[in-house]
Order: sequence, then C-alpha cells, then structure tokens
Amino acid sequence: MVTDGGRTTAPPELLYLLHGDPSELAEALAGMRAADVADALRDLGPDAGAKVMAALPFDLAVQVFDEPELDRFRADIIHRMAPESAAALAEAMSADQRADLVRELQESDRVKLLKLLDAPTRRSLEMLLDYPPESAGGIMTTEFVSIPETWRVEQALRYIGEVGRAKETVYAVYVLDGEQRLAHVVSLRELMVAERGAVVTDVGDQRRPLTVRPLTDREEVARMISKYNLLAVPVVDEGGHVLGIVTVDDVIDAIVREQTEDVQKFGGMEALDAPYMEISLVRMIKKRAGWLCALFLSEMLTATAMQHFEGEIARAVVLSMFIPLVMSSGGNSGSQATSLIIRALALHEIRLGDWWRIAMRELPTGLVLGTILGVIGIIRIEAWQHFHLFDYGQHYHLVALTVGGALVGIVCFGSFAGSMLPFLLKRIGFDPASASAPFVATLVDVTGLVIYFSVALLVLRGTLL
Amino acid sequence: MVTDGGRTTAPPELLYLLHGDPSELAEALAGMRAADVADALRDLGPDAGAKVMAALPFDLAVQVFDEPELDRFRADIIHRMAPESAAALAEAMSADQRADLVRELQESDRVKLLKLLDAPTRRSLEMLLDYPPESAGGIMTTEFVSIPETWRVEQALRYIGEVGRAKETVYAVYVLDGEQRLAHVVSLRELMVAERGAVVTDVGDQRRPLTVRPLTDREEVARMISKYNLLAVPVVDEGGHVLGIVTVDDVIDAIVREQTEDVQKFGGMEALDAPYMEISLVRMIKKRAGWLCALFLSEMLTATAMQHFEGEIARAVVLSMFIPLVMSSGGNSGSQATSLIIRALALHEIRLGDWWRIAMRELPTGLVLGTILGVIGIIRIEAWQHFHLFDYGQHYHLVALTVGGALVGIVCFGSFAGSMLPFLLKRIGFDPASASAPFVATLVDVTGLVIYFSVALLVLRGTLL
Repeated sequence: MVTDGGRTTAPPELLYLLHGDPSELAEALAGMRAADVADALRDLGPDAGAKVMAALPFDLAVQVFDEPELDRFRADIIHRMAPESAAALAEAMSADQRADLVRELQESDRVKLLKLLDAPTRRSLEMLLDYPPESAGGIMTTEFVSIPETWRVEQALRYIGEVGRAKETVYAVYVLDGEQRLAHVVSLRELMVAERGAVVTDVGDQRRPLTVRPLTDREEVARMISKYNLLAVPVVDEGGHVLGIVTVDDVIDAIVREQTEDVQKFGGMEALDAPYMEISLVRMIKKRAGWLCALFLSEMLTATAMQHFEGEIARAVVLSMFIPLVMSSGGNSGSQATSLIIRALALHEIRLGDWWRIAMRELPTGLVLGTILGVIGIIRIEAWQHFHLFDYGQHYHLVALTVGGALVGIVCFGSFAGSMLPFLLKRIGFDPASASAPFVATLVDVTGLVIYFSVALLVLRGTLL
Repeated sequence: MVTDGGRTTAPPELLYLLHGDPSELAEALAGMRAADVADALRDLGPDAGAKVMAALPFDLAVQVFDEPELDRFRADIIHRMAPESAAALAEAMSADQRADLVRELQESDRVKLLKLLDAPTRRSLEMLLDYPPESAGGIMTTEFVSIPETWRVEQALRYIGEVGRAKETVYAVYVLDGEQRLAHVVSLRELMVAERGAVVTDVGDQRRPLTVRPLTDREEVARMISKYNLLAVPVVDEGGHVLGIVTVDDVIDAIVREQTEDVQKFGGMEALDAPYMEISLVRMIKKRAGWLCALFLSEMLTATAMQHFEGEIARAVVLSMFIPLVMSSGGNSGSQATSLIIRALALHEIRLGDWWRIAMRELPTGLVLGTILGVIGIIRIEAWQHFHLFDYGQHYHLVALTVGGALVGIVCFGSFAGSMLPFLLKRIGFDPASASAPFVATLVDVTGLVIYFSVALLVLRGTLL
C-alpha cells in the first residue's frame, strides 16, 4: 500500500509498449495517475509523448495536461497534434493551466489554437493572458463556485453537488451581493456543519473576506494562503468583483519555483527558466556568463589594490602567503550573514527599517567570529615557526599579529557588509536574493585586501615594511 | 476589501490597550484573525503575550495556539500560565500542534502539563512524540474523518456534518475495512457530486490510495502532496492502519522551513532553529563559528600552497597581483554550478546516477565561461600596459597569457568541482545542500592556486621564472 511517491510504471516499459500493441499501452496508462503520466511524458520526449497523449482516454489526457510539471513540454506536444484535438483538449483544461499552455506555444500554434476555441473559453483566456505570469491574475483560475447572498445552506449544498465536478475547488464558496460583488466567503466544511435552513451569509467567519488584487505578486499570495491556512484566496478588482481564485496547489508550485529562483540567484547567476537537464547549453552559458563577467570585472579591483601595495609585497613576500586565507574568511562570514538576512527578509521576519538593529547584531557577531579565527591564525603561524615547518623570518611574531588583527577586521567587515547588502538592494528596488554569495565575496575581497595591508603597515612599519 | 496580508491591528496599539481597559483589549483582539494575533504576540514578548492570551475568548486562544508561526513562543507563554488553563488550552488544540508545543516545553512545565491532560489526549500525544519532528509521523494529526466501507454516500455526508467541526480537515474521507485497515480514500467533493445511495467505496478514484509511512521524511511527504495535488495524505503503519494524516498546510510550513534551512546551509552555516531576530547572539555565533572555523582550517592549505610557491612569488611579484582575481573566479563559477545541482537534486529533476551526464555538461560550460573570462583578463592586462596605467615588466604578454590560461583551467575546474560536490555529499549520506558556496570556494581556492602557478611555470619558465 505504501508508495515512494515515484512512478508506478517505469518509462522504459512505456517506451517498449509504445512500439507494441496500442491497446496494451492504453491499458498500462489508464492505471497511472496523471502526475505519473506527465513524468513519463517528460522522459519520453515530445514525439513519443504526442503518441502517448493520442492513446490516452480523453479525461486522463486532460488531467495530464493540467499538470503544471509538464511545463513547456505541453507546447511541444500540442505542436505535434492535430489542431482539432488540441483545441478539444485546451477547452477541457482548467483555465489557469490553459493560460500557461498558451503562453508557451509558438506563435503559429497559438494563432491556430485560438481560432478553434469557443467564444467563452477565448474570452476567459484573453483575460488571464493580460496578467503577468508572476501575479495573482497570472496564476488564478476562473472556475470557482459563487452563489447569491440570499441563498440558504440547503440550496448551496445542492448547487455544489450539481456543479462541483467542473470547478477547480468546491471547498471555498464565494457569496456575491446583488451587484455581483464579493460579500462573504464560506467554506464547504462550514456549510456542512451548519443548520440547513440558515442563510449562507450567516454561516462562518463574519469578518471581511481576505482577498488579493490581480497584480498582487504570487509570493505575496503564497504568504497569505500559508499564513491564514486558506485553501484558496479570491482575486477581486477595484469594484470588489471576483475575477478568479488562486488555490493552494497553485501556490505550492509558485513557492517551489520562487525558491528555485532564489537559490540560483544566491549562487550568483540569473535564474533558469527550465529544469537543469532540459535547458540548452547555450542558454545556460548565457544565464551564467552575465553575472560571472560582472563579478570578474568588479574583482579586477583586487588587482588594482594589489598593484597599489606592490612595494609592500616585494619587501615582505611573506605577507602574500596569507592573502587567500584572509580574503576568503571575509567572503565566508559575509556569505553567512547574507543568507540569513535574505531569508529573514523573504519570510517577513524583518523589515527594511530593521537594518540598524541587524547591524547592531552583526558587528558584535563579526567581532567574536573574527577573534576566534584570528586566534587560530596566530596559533597556526607560531606553530609552523616553532616546529620549523616554515620560516616566516625573524619578525614572525609581528607577521602572526598582522594576520590575526586583519582577520578580526575583515570578518567584522564581512558580517556587516554581507548583512547590509540585501537591505541596500531592496531599498533601491532590486531583489534582495540577488545579493549572492559571490557578490558579497567580491565586495569583501577588495576591502579585505585594503584592511590587510593597512594592518600590516601599522604593525610592521620599521621592521619588515 | 483588499488587505496586504499584514496585521489588522498594529502591536503598539495592542501594547497601549494592554495597560488600559481589559474589555477594550478583548474587543480589539476579538476582531483579529488568529494568525494576526499570533504575529502580535511575538512582537509583544512572553509577559505581555501571556496577559493577552488570558484576555482572549477561549476559542480564539485555541486558534492562536494552533498557529505554527508562534513556534517556541508558545512554550514561554505556557510557562507563565496557570497549569489548569494551560491544560485546557492544550486539550483543545489540534493534535499535531499540541505535540509541537510539548516538544518545546521546559521539562518541569511538560511534567506538570502531562499530568493534567485527560487519558485519550495523553495517549495520542505520546504516540506523536515518538516520531522524529521531521518525519510524517512528527507532523501528522490524528483528527481525521474515517468511515466504514459499508456506508452509503448519504450516511457519510450526514456524519461529516456531525463531526466536521472537530476534525483537521473534512475534505478527505478515509474508508476503513472490517479490520480497520485503509481500504479507500474519497474526497468530500466526490461525495457531494455522487449519487446519495451509492456505496462509498464505489465513489471516486478506484486506484490504491497514496499513503506514506510514519518515518517518511517530511520533504518526501511535501513532494507527494504537491505532485498529486492532494489536500492530505494518510500515514499508515505496516498493517495498513491509518495512524494520522498530513494536511497541505502542514506541508507548506514544512516546505518553507526546509527552504530556510537549505538557504542557510548554502550560505555556509548550520541552520538556525529560530527566526533571526529571536535567536540569542551566543547561539547564533555557535551556529556560525563551527563551519567558519572548518572552512578557515581548510583554507589554510592555501597558505601551504603559497609557501610552496614562495620562490616564484619572490622572483615574479607581478604574479601575486592576480591571485585574488583568478581564485575568486573559480569560486564564483563553482558556486553557480553548486546552486544549480543542489536545487535540481532537491526537486528530483536529476538523480544520483546522473552525475556523469552533469559532468559532461559542466565541463564544456566551464570551458566556454573560462575562455570568456580569460579573454577579458588578457585584454585588461594588455590595456593597462598599453595606456601606461601599470607596468607589468617587459614580459607582460606572457603574464597576460598566464592569467588567461589559468582562468580557463580554474573556471573549468570550478564548474566541475562545484557540480560534483553535491553528488559526492549525497552519495556518502550528507545533505547535498551542505555543499555551500563557501565550501566550494574553499575547495576551488587551493586547486586554483596550484593551477595558476603551474600555468605560470609553463609559460614563464626561462623568462620570469
């Protein structure tokens, strides 16, 4: 009875069936869940995928096409289907997934498909396509249950039984006033436990319903659904008319996508718009080269800084040996601070105005962490000298002191700069998640060099320098 | 009608009311949603929070305590409450949140509370506490709707109307056979649209229900719920008896928590177990110092490598100027590759066995990216020399060639190592997300130095070296 959440039929078997008896293939598929068929289709590729789609019973084919995981793959399959079959499929799909599909179609396929759709479907589609895909309007569906405010519970339950099959969810019921504006939201659970003769507006929470606007960011919608444990949230226009609803499963998909983008940005690149294995090498290189070049150009400042200290390096080559160690410690502490702040900002644990309180936490944290590393650094140099593993010259005490002192300053600065960068980016209108680990490291590297050589000048003047 | 998903009453107002008329405070609170009261409590601190809890109507107090966002804050409030009130609250809470609360209580509070709970509550609690908090058993609730397989739709609907109020969800109904084993799962929607006289086992999807085991990882549960668009998934034992269910809102919380952990790990530290602003400075320093020291100790290898090349540096100080630039490029390309692979592994887009295919993508990607950076690096050196911005000596062409060549090698190695590290960690049983950006950078730094000086020896032997 236990499944591992994986496939019920492995793709190789499907592939085998594909070249065998079509009735066997159809039988194998009919026993699978839509999400598993979608998985199998992705592995099979678009040509075989189109054949499988043709072999599927219509209802299952619709469910498979409603799987957001199919992604741009759907467009490839539609491209290979007869336009009439494609239109029948599109009309039966849920409104939000249909809009996603049409967004991904090639121009010529889109024109063909739109012509074949019936008028109401086309209108609903055009409305959804007007909204950006990352907004509430872009992920909402128009198939929700709405009832007039004069109805009683009995009537509402009977109505849900009649229309329930065709709606995205029946668990939230939207009660409209005489002007078709949202007056109340009641859950099916509340209706089920209510007295059958009660008026629907008297059932359930009497507060003004939670709503979002069509242009609300999907992350904000996700936060609201998750915070208030909703199964769906209505999207209303300025006049209070319900345009559609966003359901909890759309939101999970949105959360997962946003997270992927954030991780990739934090890794120091543009977010990919397709799974790793499906994106072409050329596109991937483009997504990575931009940030990599920008970071490289900024990092060139380290060369400029090093040129500035050329004299010091030539006089005390021993100093250059600790440059990578000292610099990387600044980058590492900065990366820690940045990841903490990005996440706390994303979860709304902290706000823009909190930057000062954060700075007051990060500076002492950096001081302690820097002191720990500084002490380890000093011990390392003294030990190597003591056990004759390397000779740092007669002034090795001072060299150790330089490294230790620089580490305190650099780790302190790294923690501070790493925690402030996300605030700064947010303040000037960028995504704080763009404060990637490499970005912070680059920022800290240049300053780190300056701190290191300044400490060296202070400690070693008159001896090595 | 539109809300921003934020508070309906700001905490300063609440704080003011706290010292004023208790009836005014109660009135202000009664109009708020449980999640907003929970937010306000967090901002008020435990002492004021305990007072507010006392002023709340019992039903709202229970809902507030059911908010997972309250986190360990609940334990602080319980500590300040009369044991009898605490027990009444705990008995009315949902089973999964009650278990979370008890996990967070101080030992003395836990003992006091357990004594006061009634026997069935204590039994259910003890069962839940047996499971690790990151497993399906640890996040499941025991309040679900189950019915015998002989029932008809009519009877099932009536039953849901009677018991619905006390259950975590009524939207998934679990049908048990004569031996109390899970025989079938039917959704409330399917029951609503079905013929009233049909036997419940004939309604809905006839496939074996999807289930998980109590020790299934919560991430796996989240993936299943999200993949199959479920509202809840049953947790069954070996014999097929339902122990509890995990609902979609528990799963959203779990997804968000896992993501926070992943981001913090990727930033190069241990995951925090509380929000940034709530964790004490000492705990935070502990969470950060471990990894920072480990990275520092590994990075010491760079000092060893530099010592090895001391002679080369002394002879050609010009080489040392590009060390930070060249090293950081390796770290940056490694960080990109790592973030891509960690995410693709987390989403099950790729499997452990795909490492070879990934390597075959990352090597050419690294080659192209390295060549781009190498060309920019060569142009930089030639330009500075040409415009007399800096004098790299008479062999500046060769220096430029060294830097360019090293960049190709290092970026290639960075992309390769960065993409393989998550596989390696996963293979030996660690979380791939521990392959943090700083970890990769450290790994690449040492090798980067060796590559750089090897290229230098190749290009500059007989001239500078």
